[in-house]
Amino acid sequence: MTSSNLSPHADRFFASDPAQREIARRLYHLIQDEPIISPHGHTDPAWFAENDFFKNATDFLLVPDHYILRMLYSQGVKLNDLGVAPKDGSASAKPRDAWRLFAEHYHLFRGTPCRIWMDHVFATVFEIDKKLTAETADFYYDTITDTLQTEAFRPRALLDKFNVAFLATTEGALDPLPHHKKIIADGWGKRVVTTFRPDDVLDPDNPNFVTNVKKLGEITGEDTSTWAGYLSGLVARRAYFREHGATATDHGHPTAATANLSLSDITALFEICLSGKNTKAESELFRAQMLTEMAKMSLADGMTMQIHPGAYRNHNATLFKDFGPDKGADIPYRVTYTEHLKPLLDVVGNETDLTIILFTLDESSYARELAPLAGHYPCLKLGPPWWFHDSLEGMKRFREQTTESAGFYNTAGFNDDTRALLSIPARHDLARRMDCRFLAQLVSEHRLDEEEAAELALDLTVNLARKAYHLD
Amino acid sequence: MTSSNLSPHADRFFASDPAQREIARRLYHLIQDEPIISPHGHTDPAWFAENDFFKNATDFLLVPDHYILRMLYSQGVKLNDLGVAPKDGSASAKPRDAWRLFAEHYHLFRGTPCRIWMDHVFATVFEIDKKLTAETADFYYDTITDTLQTEAFRPRALLDKFNVAFLATTEGALDPLPHHKKIIADGWGKRVVTTFRPDDVLDPDNPNFVTNVKKLGEITGEDTSTWAGYLSGLVARRAYFREHGATATDHGHPTAATANLSLSDITALFEICLSGKNTKAESELFRAQMLTEMAKMSLADGMTMQIHPGAYRNHNATLFKDFGPDKGADIPYRVTYTEHLKPLLDVVGNETDLTIILFTLDESSYARELAPLAGHYPCLKLGPPWWFHDSLEGMKRFREQTTESAGFYNTAGFNDDTRALLSIPARHDLARRMDCRFLAQLVSEHRLDEEEAAELALDLTVNLARKAYHLD
Amino acid sequence: MTSSNLSPHADRFFASDPAQREIARRLYHLIQDEPIISPHGHTDPAWFAENDFFKNATDFLLVPDHYILRMLYSQGVKLNDLGVAPKDGSASAKPRDAWRLFAEHYHLFRGTPCRIWMDHVFATVFEIDKKLTAETADFYYDTITDTLQTEAFRPRALLDKFNVAFLATTEGALDPLPHHKKIIADGWGKRVVTTFRPDDVLDPDNPNFVTNVKKLGEITGEDTSTWAGYLSGLVARRAYFREHGATATDHGHPTAATANLSLSDITALFEICLSGKNTKAESELFRAQMLTEMAKMSLADGMTMQIHPGAYRNHNATLFKDFGPDKGADIPYRVTYTEHLKPLLDVVGNETDLTIILFTLDESSYARELAPLAGHYPCLKLGPPWWFHDSLEGMKRFREQTTESAGFYNTAGFNDDTRALLSIPARHDLARRMDCRFLAQLVSEHRLDEEEAAELALDLTVNLARKAYHLD
Repeated sequence: MTSSNLSPHADRFFASDPAQREIARRLYHLIQDEPIISPHGHTDPAWFAENDFFKNATDFLLVPDHYILRMLYSQGVKLNDLGVAPKDGSASAKPRDAWRLFAEHYHLFRGTPCRIWMDHVFATVFEIDKKLTAETADFYYDTITDTLQTEAFRPRALLDKFNVAFLATTEGALDPLPHHKKIIADGWGKRVVTTFRPDDVLDPDNPNFVTNVKKLGEITGEDTSTWAGYLSGLVARRAYFREHGATATDHGHPTAATANLSLSDITALFEICLSGKNTKAESELFRAQMLTEMAKMSLADGMTMQIHPGAYRNHNATLFKDFGPDKGADIPYRVTYTEHLKPLLDVVGNETDLTIILFTLDESSYARELAPLAGHYPCLKLGPPWWFHDSLEGMKRFREQTTESAGFYNTAGFNDDTRALLSIPARHDLARRMDCRFLAQLVSEHRLDEEEAAELALDLTVNLARKAYHLD
Repeated sequence: MTSSNLSPHADRFFASDPAQREIARRLYHLIQDEPIISPHGHTDPAWFAENDFFKNATDFLLVPDHYILRMLYSQGVKLNDLGVAPKDGSASAKPRDAWRLFAEHYHLFRGTPCRIWMDHVFATVFEIDKKLTAETADFYYDTITDTLQTEAFRPRALLDKFNVAFLATTEGALDPLPHHKKIIADGWGKRVVTTFRPDDVLDPDNPNFVTNVKKLGEITGEDTSTWAGYLSGLVARRAYFREHGATATDHGHPTAATANLSLSDITALFEICLSGKNTKAESELFRAQMLTEMAKMSLADGMTMQIHPGAYRNHNATLFKDFGPDKGADIPYRVTYTEHLKPLLDVVGNETDLTIILFTLDESSYARELAPLAGHYPCLKLGPPWWFHDSLEGMKRFREQTTESAGFYNTAGFNDDTRALLSIPARHDLARRMDCRFLAQLVSEHRLDEEEAAELALDLTVNLARKAYHLD
Repeated sequence: MTSSNLSPHADRFFASDPAQREIARRLYHLIQDEPIISPHGHTDPAWFAENDFFKNATDFLLVPDHYILRMLYSQGVKLNDLGVAPKDGSASAKPRDAWRLFAEHYHLFRGTPCRIWMDHVFATVFEIDKKLTAETADFYYDTITDTLQTEAFRPRALLDKFNVAFLATTEGALDPLPHHKKIIADGWGKRVVTTFRPDDVLDPDNPNFVTNVKKLGEITGEDTSTWAGYLSGLVARRAYFREHGATATDHGHPTAATANLSLSDITALFEICLSGKNTKAESELFRAQMLTEMAKMSLADGMTMQIHPGAYRNHNATLFKDFGPDKGADIPYRVTYTEHLKPLLDVVGNETDLTIILFTLDESSYARELAPLAGHYPCLKLGPPWWFHDSLEGMKRFREQTTESAGFYNTAGFNDDTRALLSIPARHDLARRMDCRFLAQLVSEHRLDEEEAAELALDLTVNLARKAYHLD
């Protein structure tokens, strides 16, 4: 039998050592009420444009959350039993039944950040005081679903409730950004902005690449069948995104490979890629060149560049066929930075007006490659622990393995990278607590004065993110 | 001068922080007396079949223990001086002299799990209360050797003494399993079982591969010169092992490469391998295909599949020539899972009735590849920290680096993987203490309730192993 | 506002847990006054030969320190503004201005070992009691510069002041060693010695390789246009270095690749390399063979061999062009040991009279490859955490990830690897404190007796270095 009580502890995630905990508590107290800066994420801009009510607990909290889906799937739960609709149109479970199934399996999340985020949402956002179990499943479903129909839970109200000062969504290069137009028209344009994610027009392995490049031409009026026209088209779309608030671009390439080809080589390669006859190696080389092109454009237009490499997308072929992408079947692999980034760094590495934020799913690169690179090149900053590593132990390893070579000031603050709107405060709170914990350890071990730690706590919470994403 | 006292502390291996230690103690108290489940190991089945006395301290405890041999060898001690017999038949030290040499060098093991296991055996099994030193060497030798001649130290009595409820040994595919026949005949068949380890008939790099495949045909009555007959022969041997208690197979391939070739391709490759003219790459591809075949057979016959990749076997050429395998000269290297396992997972990854347990010697794969894979695919579970990582710090890293993505319930409990019978309780006790320590940390940091931690402690100690190896 | 007080805490770097801290304090008390053994470093032998005063704070402490330069550069500070002279002869900042710029950016070093070393130097060596800030910059500059002009701060006096019993510098194979001649003549030859670093005559990728090999012939009177003569020339230079006190060689190859070619193959390869028409792969193979040749020569002449692989040198092409090497733009990458060292180990791996010390910049190799290798091969020892990992967390990870497989006695003690003379005591003190902290943790968790920990503390501080570098 387990206790039925749900109440996040005031000292949660701090070290148990009393000396450290006391310092962490003091530091956290200084920054806990700072506004949330969320410069990288995947919430749906339609929410903030339309400002409609969310439907129910399952459709809002369960079905879109690939962290939850993957864990349940790993233990034999079928996705359609969780309310996920198969692509062939066959039936999936009703929302309440899916929620019950989730509740029955909630013990699987013990020890995971997912459990921490969810409990934080349940306790803090919905003010539920008993744990999610098979017995409380219906109570949860009803409480959450009912609460979602109240004014305070409309999307814009939630941003107020959560004290979100800045939120970036992410859209593809060809997106006409209708929702951001509406958001701007409604006066929310300083608070909710887009991010330029051009993978679908940069990646020849995308099955729609040729069509997408053609569309890019149509939208921008450039002749994208030529290399020069293609670049102009990209420049135009970047400008369009900037007009809709974007301060950053994002690049989810399979690797961190970059290249610096001659004009004749890249022109020839571009033609091959447009012909659709490119090999895998040619696709990789083209993507590599395009990272360098994006860096050059960022230098010109001032957009911060984010590189997110290292995910083997849709590793589970069957699941991808049946349900499509983003169902928890992306798996990390080894990533190389030192050799792979050199061609790009040869071009823009010494620029002090350029910000390139590096992320990784391969923690072995933290101390070996990323911290030494960011601790040297003026243009480089380290993004926060990403995805599978956006967790207590992941954040601990990030600080332990990057701080000594890169310092704190070559990092870019926290970002939540989430589509799960309700968990944004939970994720930022976790990051703030873990940063305060790390700083408290340094103070308790006489590696840093508490006064300096206090300055750092504020820097890590708001200032570094503002600076890295050019928010001021 | 060092203290001569030997007495394992009641709180050993728990964190020194009083809050954590108190919780760890409570959790450990709940599970310390649970029976030992040992589903993967390398004890000699002849021991349990014949139930004879063990000979002396050196031949039983020192000579077969490659952890001890490797450390002493690394510091210039010769193997024949430790009583290890060279293959050329030349002399090796007498048991008592070898033991004295071991005792003189016992300080080399400070800080190693080997020291912890040995001290546990000395203090708990032989009730010796002073440390092993040059001075106490003879006392140790005599005490141990004498005690081994008592009824309570016959192999079957030891299983009772140690509260071992289940013990699996490991045998090659061609082994007629005479000892397990005797064990079954004597009524011990539910307690001591075999494991199917077919490397010698799956690996074309084995110098006896062609002969072994021929023998497989002779034993099973199948025509193993054809691909179909070879597969049938393997199916037959798996059935034979199951009849002798096996619930699992084990695969010690150099890498985790898998393949999913067409029938014509694998038929052609099989012929090349049988001709003995295969290249290294063809051997690797054949082994890769055979992992997939084994997975398909496991799906059919219900045997849990264990994959143990990443050891460079017999790295020390001279030592291998002079003394043969398993003398401590196997060295790990980098292992790839995400790309390498995909062909196998494309075939069976989504099966909920199949259990494949992954092990690694490359800890950099824990957070990057293994936890994400096991946290998604229904068929995958993570084996405990293996070999060089079956240690305090190794276990700590395993939990820290896998729990947040895979959870606890995608792990397979502990196994001791040992041929050192007397150290089995020491190894399980260490694992139980380290699991309780990890859980206590989560509780003390308010990441988990103590009631849930108590459930988990029992799950990690017995339930997960029982489930992963289909013991119920 | 931050506190202006500067005073290193007596318990700094020990764990905050009172039980651990108390034990660490006791262990540290036993060894804190032991003399400094510095068997690997890069101080300038001219200092100890000439024994002149150092010039000023900036030229001595700032300009040569690539740890400081890289961090400041990463945040947009220009090297010439720090007083670093460009190769084209253009102006750089005056010393006082450079120092002020450093002081203004001192907060960037929070959480880095650099900050810890510098504060230790300021507080302990110069007895300054307020922090370095923009406000105290001039006070610092004047205090340090003035103090450097006193007798107690001449180089030889500093060695006395710092209780340095042994210090090795590092010189190229062709260096005539004039400073060491003077040092020996002045009776300091047992205390300050050279180290044989032959990269420039072993590496065909060195632009001066062919000239250097020719010079090797001229200096030694050997015909280095032949393989045999080349080897004889190397033997002669090793003897020359030994006569000037060297007990060790050092090898900074890009990778840990080794080879064991036939005489005809290496002869042919040598000729290709001397022709200057070698490919990158041939350079790599030649270097690989030369590591094995060096190991054989070490076996013959008794010099300890140090292998430092894994740095991508001068990664920043622009900075290298403008300012030359060693400006903080060397970046680590992945290193392979298990496969790469095998050819060398096949030749000398089992020699008990040979010492080869392995270093790494790729921490993922600690537990996976280096500890298992050193825990088996008699000739191998592990060097201390190197460069980016010569830090609190780096030292912690080193012990945690190597001790359980290699033990303490297969490690080679600490070395500071520095050209920053004043920070030598800071670095050794940090290492001693971190070792005592690690030992204290083992004691507090009942993994080691305190009496044994005390023996180990002394071994790690002096005995293991003396043994590994053959200083007795």
